[in-house]
Amino acid sequence: MSPHRCLARFAAAWAERDVAGLLDLMTDDAVYAASVGPEPGRTFRGHLELAGGFRAMFEHDADAVIEQDEPVFMGDWAVSTWTYRFVVADGPQRCERGIDLWRFREGKICLKDAYRKVDR
Amino acid sequence: MSPHRCLARFAAAWAERDVAGLLDLMTDDAVYAASVGPEPGRTFRGHLELAGGFRAMFEHDADAVIEQDEPVFMGDWAVSTWTYRFVVADGPQRCERGIDLWRFREGKICLKDAYRKVDR
Repeated sequence: MSPHRCLARFAAAWAERDVAGLLDLMTDDAVYAASVGPEPGRTFRGHLELAGGFRAMFEHDADAVIEQDEPVFMGDWAVSTWTYRFVVADGPQRCERGIDLWRFREGKICLKDAYRKVDR
Repeated sequence: MSPHRCLARFAAAWAERDVAGLLDLMTDDAVYAASVGPEPGRTFRGHLELAGGFRAMFEHDADAVIEQDEPVFMGDWAVSTWTYRFVVADGPQRCERGIDLWRFREGKICLKDAYRKVDR
């Protein structure tokens, strides 16, 4: 699968919180370096850890509406930016903006390395 | 100037906190979207605002030792990751990890869009 097609399918599965669909697109030894955590960030390796990492991030960003920008591709690498808009009834609008650095191997994702703008 | 050469010179000037050297490498209408601020992040446009933005970020990360990874280039774009290690006498080691998305036009940088891992 091309990196372009792979990322389009990943974005759709992410928006639907479809963990099995996400894992289908990752190599067995894939690394997910999440944008939030104490390392700073938090690193998950292999499908079992990835599944836990994806679920933790979905919980962290529950109630967010995801807007994903068009990725930029560079050989086995890609980069894509995104905005999470949090819709809170009667509260102020809040958003988080971030970026993913991707690496591909044999038609699948072997690295998703995520970062955010820091609101302070 | 090639994007590769441009980024190498930018990295050297950044490590030396050389604002004039940084501005020489940016187009007149360049945008610096800093990783920290209330938007979230904070956006600076044009040399006058860029100079203020660079100085504010140097102050934010004073006492950090900067480690910059090798950038990945993709036509007019590049992406590079970095670590700031804060050395505090008698205190615990702390680091910040981040990424810059770069865009180039006519041999200069027209966008530096920065993000960090969030420690929480």
